[in-house]
Amino acid sequence: MDEGLFITVEGIDGSGKSTQVSMIKDYLSSLGWAVYVTREPGGTEISEKIRSILLDCKNKDMEPLTELFLFLASRAQHTMEVVIPHLKKGEAVVSDRYADSSVAFQGWGRKIGWELVENLNYVATFGIEPHLTILLDIPPELGQERLSLVQGKLFKDRMEGEKGEFHKLVRYGYLDLAKRHSNRIKVIDGTKSVSNVWSEIKHHIDELLTKRRNR
Amino acid sequence: MDEGLFITVEGIDGSGKSTQVSMIKDYLSSLGWAVYVTREPGGTEISEKIRSILLDCKNKDMEPLTELFLFLASRAQHTMEVVIPHLKKGEAVVSDRYADSSVAFQGWGRKIGWELVENLNYVATFGIEPHLTILLDIPPELGQERLSLVQGKLFKDRMEGEKGEFHKLVRYGYLDLAKRHSNRIKVIDGTKSVSNVWSEIKHHIDELLTKRRNR
Repeated sequence: MDEGLFITVEGIDGSGKSTQVSMIKDYLSSLGWAVYVTREPGGTEISEKIRSILLDCKNKDMEPLTELFLFLASRAQHTMEVVIPHLKKGEAVVSDRYADSSVAFQGWGRKIGWELVENLNYVATFGIEPHLTILLDIPPELGQERLSLVQGKLFKDRMEGEKGEFHKLVRYGYLDLAKRHSNRIKVIDGTKSVSNVWSEIKHHIDELLTKRRNR
Repeated sequence: MDEGLFITVEGIDGSGKSTQVSMIKDYLSSLGWAVYVTREPGGTEISEKIRSILLDCKNKDMEPLTELFLFLASRAQHTMEVVIPHLKKGEAVVSDRYADSSVAFQGWGRKIGWELVENLNYVATFGIEPHLTILLDIPPELGQERLSLVQGKLFKDRMEGEKGEFHKLVRYGYLDLAKRHSNRIKVIDGTKSVSNVWSEIKHHIDELLTKRRNR
């Protein structure tokens, strides 16, 4: 498993994750890596079914703990069916969101508490941790503004549709998490231009790959 | 919440739970209780959506942990939306399966381990425990035989369709659980006639109600 490379991209909605995920994919491919791009919640047939329950705006009475357990269910399936097999083959796995999202969104946003969520994540991920996590940090207002500009994004899903206060808490949660895991999580100012953000991400990837070559 | 009455009925598939649940309901009603009958997985709109993922035979590659987290998600919603509100109104809640099912089916049947499942149940149930749990114990072969006799039960769901070895483990898990919680869980021989089983259940309910009157 140590031969594989596991990179996750985190941040509130509208922070520019998908753009950077595809740039990471292209870069790693150019270096000769077989790259598998995935996302959470989702990434497997069963996890996508769980995703549809999670994001359906009709499920407005969902309890915070129900939401958390659904994310964990989706994550356990995704980790065992996708992440671990690809890493075992020595490939690179790039995931748009992973376990840290639950610490920020359910631990902080839904106020369940980060300690409980981190403990449950440990179970759901079978102890797997990304080698590198990029946290794209932006103010929630900018995220909401960007979301409404996305073509065809006429309707927000159940998580995106949450109030501003929720997204502020999530952002705070992400930054707190990055402090506690500063070796793994690199915070990047997501208000910068796409190319500036990318050059910082590239720097962190290069640094990680150099370290691995020298170990 | 202490004014309410929470009774759960457990056992492997085909143990006769539904018949006895409806007899418990009628008896409690005759004593003047407002009775709410429910079931797991399910019992709420969101939980029934989760149930359909859980029992769908197409999801044959579901990981044991995914299954467990889906049951916990369904349980958290069911407990908060149904069980707690009815107990708070001083009503009786009778549930066809509850948290113990996960200890037996996922903890033992899927070999996740009962300690982890009991810890996670504590989170998903907000610490709520039934006042009385009836465990209908039968040999798995009899359960399968009865299932195939049920009119219209032409297709088994994903859990019912498991092999005999699985149901044997589940039965063992239930009996082990009953030993550790002998005050709450009463084991009844489910191979006896419906009326014999019922008279034992009635005895346990009467005993519980007498204790409560005298406290």
